[in-house]
Amino acid sequence: MYIILVYDINQKRVGKMLRLCRKYLNWIQNSVFEGEISEVKLTELKFNALKIMNPQTDSLIIFKTRQEKWLDKEVIGLERADIDNFL
Amino acid sequence: MYIILVYDINQKRVGKMLRLCRKYLNWIQNSVFEGEISEVKLTELKFNALKIMNPQTDSLIIFKTRQEKWLDKEVIGLERADIDNFL
Repeated sequence: MYIILVYDINQKRVGKMLRLCRKYLNWIQNSVFEGEISEVKLTELKFNALKIMNPQTDSLIIFKTRQEKWLDKEVIGLERADIDNFL
Repeated sequence: MYIILVYDINQKRVGKMLRLCRKYLNWIQNSVFEGEISEVKLTELKFNALKIMNPQTDSLIIFKTRQEKWLDKEVIGLERADIDNFL
C-alpha cells in the first residue's frame, strides 16, 4: 500500500522519529513522509514509533491508499529533494 | 475532491498561513489539514498561499484524491480535535 505519514513530536524526540521514518519512507517535508510499504513493515514502523512518542502530547497520522495512482501530489515552493542533495 | 495539505513555513508567516488554511479545510495536526474542496476553491487557496509564502524557503504540499473513501486515516497519539476543543 502507499502511505503518507505526518507527525508532530516534541523536539526532544523528533530526531529519533525522523531517523525511524527515513528507514521506511521517503522524506518529503519537515515532518512528512510518503512511500510504498507492506502491512508487515507498517506494523513494525508503528510499533517502533510508539516506543519513541508520548501519545499524550505527540501525534502521528497515517493516510493509506491501496494505489499510489489514486493520489495526485502537487508541491508548491521548496521541494525536500532539493534539500536532501545538500545533506 | 478530497485533499490533504501540509506546509513547512517560516515562523514569521506561519500564523497567516494557518488562518488561511482553516478557512478552507479541517486542521488535523500542527501543519496538516484535510477536507473536501472544489477545484475553484483550491485554486483560490493556492493563490492566497503564494501571496503569504516565500517559495525559496517555504513548502506547501497538496495530495489530492477524487474520493475520500480511497484514503484511510489512522491517528496515533494526540488528536487535533482534542486540542481544538480547548481553543
